[in-house]
Amino acid sequence: MRRIKLIVSYDGTNYSGFQIQPNAVTIEEELNKALTDLCGEEVKVIGASRTDAGVHALMNVAVFDTNMRMAADKFAYALNQRLPSDIIIQDSCEVPEDFHPRYASSIKTYEYRILNRKFPDPILKNFTYPYYYELDVDAMNEAAKCFIGEHDFTSFSAVKAQVTTRVRMIYDCSVTRDGDLITLRITGNGFLYNMVRIIAGTLLKVGSHDISPSDIPVILDARDREAAGPTAPPQGLVLISLEYI
Amino acid sequence: MRRIKLIVSYDGTNYSGFQIQPNAVTIEEELNKALTDLCGEEVKVIGASRTDAGVHALMNVAVFDTNMRMAADKFAYALNQRLPSDIIIQDSCEVPEDFHPRYASSIKTYEYRILNRKFPDPILKNFTYPYYYELDVDAMNEAAKCFIGEHDFTSFSAVKAQVTTRVRMIYDCSVTRDGDLITLRITGNGFLYNMVRIIAGTLLKVGSHDISPSDIPVILDARDREAAGPTAPPQGLVLISLEYI
Repeated sequence: MRRIKLIVSYDGTNYSGFQIQPNAVTIEEELNKALTDLCGEEVKVIGASRTDAGVHALMNVAVFDTNMRMAADKFAYALNQRLPSDIIIQDSCEVPEDFHPRYASSIKTYEYRILNRKFPDPILKNFTYPYYYELDVDAMNEAAKCFIGEHDFTSFSAVKAQVTTRVRMIYDCSVTRDGDLITLRITGNGFLYNMVRIIAGTLLKVGSHDISPSDIPVILDARDREAAGPTAPPQGLVLISLEYI
Repeated sequence: MRRIKLIVSYDGTNYSGFQIQPNAVTIEEELNKALTDLCGEEVKVIGASRTDAGVHALMNVAVFDTNMRMAADKFAYALNQRLPSDIIIQDSCEVPEDFHPRYASSIKTYEYRILNRKFPDPILKNFTYPYYYELDVDAMNEAAKCFIGEHDFTSFSAVKAQVTTRVRMIYDCSVTRDGDLITLRITGNGFLYNMVRIIAGTLLKVGSHDISPSDIPVILDARDREAAGPTAPPQGLVLISLEYI
């Protein structure tokens, strides 16, 4: 048996998220089906980031074990012929047998994209959150900077998340505007369930002056989900990169 | 009766082009259906640019005449509630009764987008043409400059196009690279049937050194469709803007 690592990209619009679940179509299930068909043995992937329903990824990671003898880089080509067109393997390579995509240390970057104008753009429709009202991007960026560093993100985590610690390190966090498109970009060593979407929802409140940038440290200190803003809708969120360190 | 102008944007992936035709779903047909439903009278639009199957638009124009008494800017909101989600009206306003969107002088800008890497991007999939092999963008840009000015574009027009003259004025034409994404951007006073896609297909030949930039004036002079490169696939093409002058 050897372990193969896949770089997995997908348009999450038509999926109930990454993780396999009954009575729903998921990225994990499609990967398992395509791999089982290709390898002629039952294959189950282990995914790195279990993105939510409607969330996209340019670079998620999954590994699987197989007895199949095929050059490791060829799995990408063979899988792309078997996968639906909205899931695309960007690369495949062999990794040590004990490499685990969730336990290995990594740096992840997410973007949350807001289209700030009257009507949606048909091309960006599934990949942006349309927001009509004026947003103060300078205030949003000032607030974003407060997330940089090591913090307990309990206030920015879905209550149902079961984890041993809610402390995460954020290396960078910024909000920028390019025409109608406002992008929150956040890089860190790990993210709690719904964390980026709750940060995005809170920064939208900052952009509309319902919350001040100086409130962010207070919300972090509260360690209470009720203290933060709402969870922004999934379609604006894209996992941009995931690098092992 | 008064005449209303619509700014129409669409993801053309699932349509057989703009222009109405039997046994196919078109943008024009969807606009007519939504307007007839809204106005309670049979309405038929006149479109500006009759884009092909699979081609997209951020800013196409259509006009229609109606007896309905509604503030002109409200048509955009009312239509967006009736149209499929991949057709979005960006604006509506009243124009003179004799304004014709095809006969009035205009400046149009198209972009043709090429994703130059091994595998497609799931987010850009329907809006770029994936091209694996190396492309010389400097040569493509040098060749693009040869289209600027007034030329007879017979060599860059589908044979079936029935028009009185194939002379068109191109104000600007360039090819640029941003990471994996190569963009041909072309602005002119009018475009023949398939013209931008044939220019894109020819510039791809330049990018792979099958044609030299200095061949472009020769191909223009030939006034022969056979002299130019192939017609690039539709999904890379987007009508970016259409301004009346």
